[in-house]
Amino acid sequence: MVRVGYPVTLWPEMLSVFPEGVELIPISDKMDHDVEVEVWIPDPYSTRAMRAWPHLRGVKLVLAMMAGTEWIPATVGPHVTICNAQGAHNISTAEWTLTAILASIKYFPLYFDIQQSAQWTRRFEASTYYVTITGDMRPIYPPVLQEELTGKTVLLVGYGAIGKEIERMLEPFRVEMFRVARTPRTVPEVHSVSELDALLPKAQVIVLIVPSTPETRHLINAARLALLQPGALLVNAARGPVVDTDALVTALQGGKIRAALDVTDPEPLPTEHPLWRCPNLLLTPHIGGSTPQFAPRSLATAAGELRRYMRGEPLQNVVQAAI
Amino acid sequence: MVRVGYPVTLWPEMLSVFPEGVELIPISDKMDHDVEVEVWIPDPYSTRAMRAWPHLRGVKLVLAMMAGTEWIPATVGPHVTICNAQGAHNISTAEWTLTAILASIKYFPLYFDIQQSAQWTRRFEASTYYVTITGDMRPIYPPVLQEELTGKTVLLVGYGAIGKEIERMLEPFRVEMFRVARTPRTVPEVHSVSELDALLPKAQVIVLIVPSTPETRHLINAARLALLQPGALLVNAARGPVVDTDALVTALQGGKIRAALDVTDPEPLPTEHPLWRCPNLLLTPHIGGSTPQFAPRSLATAAGELRRYMRGEPLQNVVQAAI
Repeated sequence: MVRVGYPVTLWPEMLSVFPEGVELIPISDKMDHDVEVEVWIPDPYSTRAMRAWPHLRGVKLVLAMMAGTEWIPATVGPHVTICNAQGAHNISTAEWTLTAILASIKYFPLYFDIQQSAQWTRRFEASTYYVTITGDMRPIYPPVLQEELTGKTVLLVGYGAIGKEIERMLEPFRVEMFRVARTPRTVPEVHSVSELDALLPKAQVIVLIVPSTPETRHLINAARLALLQPGALLVNAARGPVVDTDALVTALQGGKIRAALDVTDPEPLPTEHPLWRCPNLLLTPHIGGSTPQFAPRSLATAAGELRRYMRGEPLQNVVQAAI
Repeated sequence: MVRVGYPVTLWPEMLSVFPEGVELIPISDKMDHDVEVEVWIPDPYSTRAMRAWPHLRGVKLVLAMMAGTEWIPATVGPHVTICNAQGAHNISTAEWTLTAILASIKYFPLYFDIQQSAQWTRRFEASTYYVTITGDMRPIYPPVLQEELTGKTVLLVGYGAIGKEIERMLEPFRVEMFRVARTPRTVPEVHSVSELDALLPKAQVIVLIVPSTPETRHLINAARLALLQPGALLVNAARGPVVDTDALVTALQGGKIRAALDVTDPEPLPTEHPLWRCPNLLLTPHIGGSTPQFAPRSLATAAGELRRYMRGEPLQNVVQAAI
């Protein structure tokens, strides 16, 4: 029997996809004793998982439920193999990204405000907003009350599984697409990060979907924000530290760019943080991945790894091999 | 020369797509004298256009900039040919529809409220909301903070040009799609309106995109709202009178369904109207069609009809032939 520690916050029936020959050990973050487990599924809330870790003995394999596992190596050290749940939030995160882009360019934050005020005729504020944020002074009639995604230029920064899913959901909108990633490719064309500065001024929508690493920390800083065109929309579906938050606050307060964020630095964002009150911002509190479909997908991935582990087969989603 | 009356609210350079042999006559809704024009392009704002009409003499052809022309026949009578601008708002309206669906099921109205309150931890209200509106009591972890569109069941009521555009934009989400229209078809399967009552209980998202006619007035009434499943989302991208507003207010106040509306009955919706304050509602003030791309597309369509009219060729988008 392989002893598998799972977060007590999960219901046991959610683990019915796990193979036979597994002994399931519920792990609480409030444990007062040590527990021997060979495989550990950490609680998706990293603070809870980090509290549980010191009580675990004999862990050889960590099967994360999330795609983003940046906190795990520092917690468990180098002698443990870590797999992530690649794919568990591809759909939900890509859907959040599409929603955030569309809601921003349809001025839904303004329209929510109008709905709350119950004043139909305030819709013409959208027209003023359009001219102010884009600087487009061409004669337009009737007044612009929203923008179209169709035909816009989109820069995808990051081209892993979620980036490709975002691209797939953008297909019906016939956007002009540029891609940047660590590994440049030719089909489809993916530019290297060294070309980022040349591409940023071309984009009307910039989507960040890179992993959080030392290299991607503050990838979007004050100098790069200054390269954006008026009205450009920066979407962060990656991790908060990919953007220099202070620089973003300054840029948003300047009134010439827009942003949509599901992640911030720090998280949770304190109530007194100025980011909350920036103009032209849509901010959701890191909810992009949490849907009813998340746990079933994630645990199915973990079950597959567990089956391979028990048979001695190579694991599929290794993010750290034990040394 | 053919005398073409155009709304003075348009800039003359927007009409540069019109053919040679046309004399352009600006028409104001504040005119105090009569004007002879053979072709009339009414102001997209119908109240302004209706004020101008009594001053026009000799109109044989009306080229509307909009798809919805329901007010025109009653204004100009039966002896005038009317063409609409089929297609001018296909993209913008379909994009609004997709945005409204996604924003609703991602709980963006709640997240805007949370953003305004600057309280990150309020995100768990989304979990309570999910259980309350859907009645789904299955164990789910982490808490549900939004839903996915992928895999949902969508009922498209109306399958004209905009309906097809909406279907195209829904493709990446692999929804289960049912279609209802006046004219049933087999490829793809389009059901007749008589099957609407059987299909409504199956749908998680219902999109209304039918023309406003005596037959579609109050197509969605109290009896049909009662057929919806808990958590169902009713999206009206058509015209306000397609839904019985009083019945919708009652249904929304019951807390078991959701709605997203760009159109209402009446319009503009008075500030004191109870619809503004209904729960589980996303309401935008009839902005779905108004984008910077609208007028160029619309006037290109009108220019095409004008060219055919001047050559004596059949017109393409006739909604009323002169008797």
